[in-house]
Amino acid sequence: MEKIVSLCKRRGFIFQSSEIYGGINGFWDYGPLGAELKRNVKELWWNTMTRQRDDVAGLEATIIMSPLIWKASGHVDTFSDPMCTCKACKKLIREDQWWTLMCEQSWVQSLAAVVEANTNKLSGEDLLKWAKGRGKHLAPNLALVRNPEVTLSWLAEDIEKGKRPADAKEYFLYLATEQRGATGFVKPCPHCGGELTEPRPFNLMLKTHTGPIESDENIAYLRPETAQAIFAQFKNVLDTSRQKVPFGIAQVGKAFRNEITPRNFTFRSREFEQMELEFFIKPDEAIEAIHGSVATVPSTGHPGGPQPNWGWQAWHQYWVEERVKFYEGIGLSSQTLGFHVQTPEELAHYARACTDILFKFPFSKKDEQGNVTGDELEGIAARSDFDLSQHARFSGKPMGVFDDELRAAWGKLPEEKQKDLWKRYYDNRKKYLTKSGVAEEAATKQATEDANGLAKGQYIPHVIEPSAGVDRLILALITNAYSETSKTDEKGKSETTFVMKFHPRVAPIKVGVLPLLKNKPELVKKALEVRELLRPWLNVYYDDGGSIGKRYARQDEAGTPFCVTVDFDTLGEKGPELLDTVTLRYRDDGRQERLKISELRDWLLARVR
Amino acid sequence: MEKIVSLCKRRGFIFQSSEIYGGINGFWDYGPLGAELKRNVKELWWNTMTRQRDDVAGLEATIIMSPLIWKASGHVDTFSDPMCTCKACKKLIREDQWWTLMCEQSWVQSLAAVVEANTNKLSGEDLLKWAKGRGKHLAPNLALVRNPEVTLSWLAEDIEKGKRPADAKEYFLYLATEQRGATGFVKPCPHCGGELTEPRPFNLMLKTHTGPIESDENIAYLRPETAQAIFAQFKNVLDTSRQKVPFGIAQVGKAFRNEITPRNFTFRSREFEQMELEFFIKPDEAIEAIHGSVATVPSTGHPGGPQPNWGWQAWHQYWVEERVKFYEGIGLSSQTLGFHVQTPEELAHYARACTDILFKFPFSKKDEQGNVTGDELEGIAARSDFDLSQHARFSGKPMGVFDDELRAAWGKLPEEKQKDLWKRYYDNRKKYLTKSGVAEEAATKQATEDANGLAKGQYIPHVIEPSAGVDRLILALITNAYSETSKTDEKGKSETTFVMKFHPRVAPIKVGVLPLLKNKPELVKKALEVRELLRPWLNVYYDDGGSIGKRYARQDEAGTPFCVTVDFDTLGEKGPELLDTVTLRYRDDGRQERLKISELRDWLLARVR
Repeated sequence: MEKIVSLCKRRGFIFQSSEIYGGINGFWDYGPLGAELKRNVKELWWNTMTRQRDDVAGLEATIIMSPLIWKASGHVDTFSDPMCTCKACKKLIREDQWWTLMCEQSWVQSLAAVVEANTNKLSGEDLLKWAKGRGKHLAPNLALVRNPEVTLSWLAEDIEKGKRPADAKEYFLYLATEQRGATGFVKPCPHCGGELTEPRPFNLMLKTHTGPIESDENIAYLRPETAQAIFAQFKNVLDTSRQKVPFGIAQVGKAFRNEITPRNFTFRSREFEQMELEFFIKPDEAIEAIHGSVATVPSTGHPGGPQPNWGWQAWHQYWVEERVKFYEGIGLSSQTLGFHVQTPEELAHYARACTDILFKFPFSKKDEQGNVTGDELEGIAARSDFDLSQHARFSGKPMGVFDDELRAAWGKLPEEKQKDLWKRYYDNRKKYLTKSGVAEEAATKQATEDANGLAKGQYIPHVIEPSAGVDRLILALITNAYSETSKTDEKGKSETTFVMKFHPRVAPIKVGVLPLLKNKPELVKKALEVRELLRPWLNVYYDDGGSIGKRYARQDEAGTPFCVTVDFDTLGEKGPELLDTVTLRYRDDGRQERLKISELRDWLLARVR
Repeated sequence: MEKIVSLCKRRGFIFQSSEIYGGINGFWDYGPLGAELKRNVKELWWNTMTRQRDDVAGLEATIIMSPLIWKASGHVDTFSDPMCTCKACKKLIREDQWWTLMCEQSWVQSLAAVVEANTNKLSGEDLLKWAKGRGKHLAPNLALVRNPEVTLSWLAEDIEKGKRPADAKEYFLYLATEQRGATGFVKPCPHCGGELTEPRPFNLMLKTHTGPIESDENIAYLRPETAQAIFAQFKNVLDTSRQKVPFGIAQVGKAFRNEITPRNFTFRSREFEQMELEFFIKPDEAIEAIHGSVATVPSTGHPGGPQPNWGWQAWHQYWVEERVKFYEGIGLSSQTLGFHVQTPEELAHYARACTDILFKFPFSKKDEQGNVTGDELEGIAARSDFDLSQHARFSGKPMGVFDDELRAAWGKLPEEKQKDLWKRYYDNRKKYLTKSGVAEEAATKQATEDANGLAKGQYIPHVIEPSAGVDRLILALITNAYSETSKTDEKGKSETTFVMKFHPRVAPIKVGVLPLLKNKPELVKKALEVRELLRPWLNVYYDDGGSIGKRYARQDEAGTPFCVTVDFDTLGEKGPELLDTVTLRYRDDGRQERLKISELRDWLLARVR
């Protein structure tokens, strides 16, 4: 990972934000190559998800929106991490990262070694020795260091009662505890060993004020996700885009989260970019009313494309498969990807399913079987009708759509079927309303209205949400592309070079155009003509500096998939059959072939788009 | 303008942000067509400024950066508007907008009429009548309304002394003044007539906190411009991109300003997007040392492209011309544009020149000669070496570059010339340092060092900054494209229709693909084939709903420059010569011609790129 970070800076992919001022934690800038790579990825996503489809419309909403949106979405009340504060050094620690952070500290490692050696002894002499030596220096606020007798007495006492610490983690709770609180042992601060408070929720939204006065009325948040703007503008888009459910709204844009401990380079940062699609579908009850039944989900593939009788499960699977195709189409092979299907316990109450697409990063941890599963690139969630329902409730504006086909179909259903569908829709609506804190009576009334609406052709669309992180994907692409080779030259000197094997579709530069020699005007003239020929169509890098080998190596490091060299053959010096042809060199294997200049544009476009 | 706003919402170009929650002042979202239009504009700018040039590298930096950057740039201390508060209604008013706001109020208009009629009378009876009538209702807090006798006595007293109010504006100061303060008359609040406070500076940067604690140490700002990131990363880009001065760094991205009164639809909003280039050049002294003299600036044009002996004036003019070309190239004719060349009084102390490119918006005001000059789309500033110098001083990191050519040339200069150039460079550096508050002695020492550096081939690059606003440009393009026609049908019924005459390069949809009839499978099949053929290359809209005339009209309203209709001729029903040809219809004049499907892609690409 260190290699990747250093390469990113050296080759202008990613810089630390505000580096000349010592940086700012959790913020990263994209340099010349990084900015191109990122543009390509966003452009490909937008083209794939929006322009290439009839059933998706685009949106570009503001980062700052009405704070009421974040009330409706639940972010104001529940978008928070449990945080502990160190009573000694005042640092804040995310509770769920506590043990990971602990394991990284040198005092923890050295103490763990001592604990390991003393598991079966009760005297604690070695612990005492550690406390008075390294501990005093490294973890001055640890109870064991400040007051070793008391701490060791807790330990001894408990062990006497048969409460032997189960593992290293538990040992640290003992050793951090001087005065046992009502809640038992306390966690030590990873930084100084001090006592951590109980966790408290810490909201992750960055807050600001709009307008002239910094008052509570003027609070605004930097969006923590792009999705909510799509829900808030759902009706406007529906009314102006001639789309009908099922259809989607796509958006790419920045989002902000006040992560306590930004980590893993650009993987978890405070400012990041998302590519989100909200795909609105009919509720299964409507599908069943119209088509008699909801399509069963085939085990893989959707060769015929979306079908009218698809319910949420088929759509969810469809989008998982589409998104995997996207990743494979930009060079992330299936071996580098992984999946995490969220368990019912992990899912939010309104969610029906969520599949995460993972990438195996260098920092990804191994599971219990020793396999790297990877870290999340994208989550594809089936979110029921929760989001639009929330905004309907909080804004007082209707979010339902009217469906002619449903209304017509409903009238022809047997009464039995009508009752069954009515009841199921009613139950779902009631469950949502109750879980959202609506009182029993009001929930019953509203759910009845909603189910009556269904019978008249109205419903609130459900949504499938493929939500991807741009920065994570860039990091995955860089990691995936990095390829090192060691060469030994004739004199036995070995040299390590690297090639960035980006898929041509995402590569920052598509083609290098090189005149064989810089000091031959005919070669330079011809090479510049080739540059002008290609430049309106793709990103070209013209390079006449240094030996041809050096220039190839430079493009290899930038990840340029093809180089075109204008040589004396191009000028016809070897005869007319090679006139106006160039050498085309492949980055990945150094292979070369001869191509006509007149065919160059189409040859390249077929490969880089 | 109202027509434009309503059209933007109705056709999905621009929506009010968070509309379902009553909106949020100063924030606007782009709907499906607007998002495409905006993407096209940004893409064209990026391609023109970065990909199509060898001498510009791209950057994509974060919105939140180290707060020290805004200290160095001067934004923390001086990026503020003078603001008055109304003592009665507590509203804030930008002092420089006071009279504009006043003129929009109905109480001001009705009172102005009364003032007009009373200019030569002293009795003020009509004023009194107004105060007790409309005034009481419309401007309850105006001194004239609350206490007319006192106010009128001031007026009478002053007029007796020969201090007759000069104009309506001054009259209002009299009529708002009950107790004359030390500073004389007071301004009335445009909203309620109350007394405004003296103006105080109000910083326009939106503030937030990063990290867990809301303390002064954690303050961060949302960038008010994208430019500073470019200066802060100047060295990183220089070191990684193989660029040499002269070269530029380009960036597109969001910026935020806490405007007190966002105005004119999307023209002045709180969240907006910028497209900025910082083009770094050698100081004129270096040019003169290397080339003997600095190129004189031709009156227009730069047919041979940039020359090595260009100084800042030639580069400044070059960029003004390049930018005008850009605007003309996306459909803004020279008649719709205007210019404002900043006067020495308007320029910041470090700036050498600034030319604003204006567009004549519907809300643009007339100048004294009755001509609409327009409002700013882009400013092209020659900013000397101020920006990099500031960051060098505040970060302590060197921002100078080393120039081999200069070093070599300097050695060959006659001593006289060396002394002259040394002195001029010294004077410029000294002036900058002194103006920036560096003490005399330190400034002398530093300027001497800098001038000695020049003699060794070192300097801090100067910069030309073409800085454009995306949202303003979008508004200009929409305004410019809007074209209304009234048609009267055979029955004498007149109907107003409109066409959005976007330049094909920016049009959200490039081509509509229409089967003549929806219920003829052969036509639909062929039309879908055409869609698939074109879709990988440009944004296609497939439409089979309604009469062909309606579908044309729909595309006219979306600004689609071309429509392609698949009809029975396409199927060969009129003979083989028309087989696989389509009707191509031009949006702007309804003209139609016949094109082969096989030629369609290239024909369109040649026109929409």
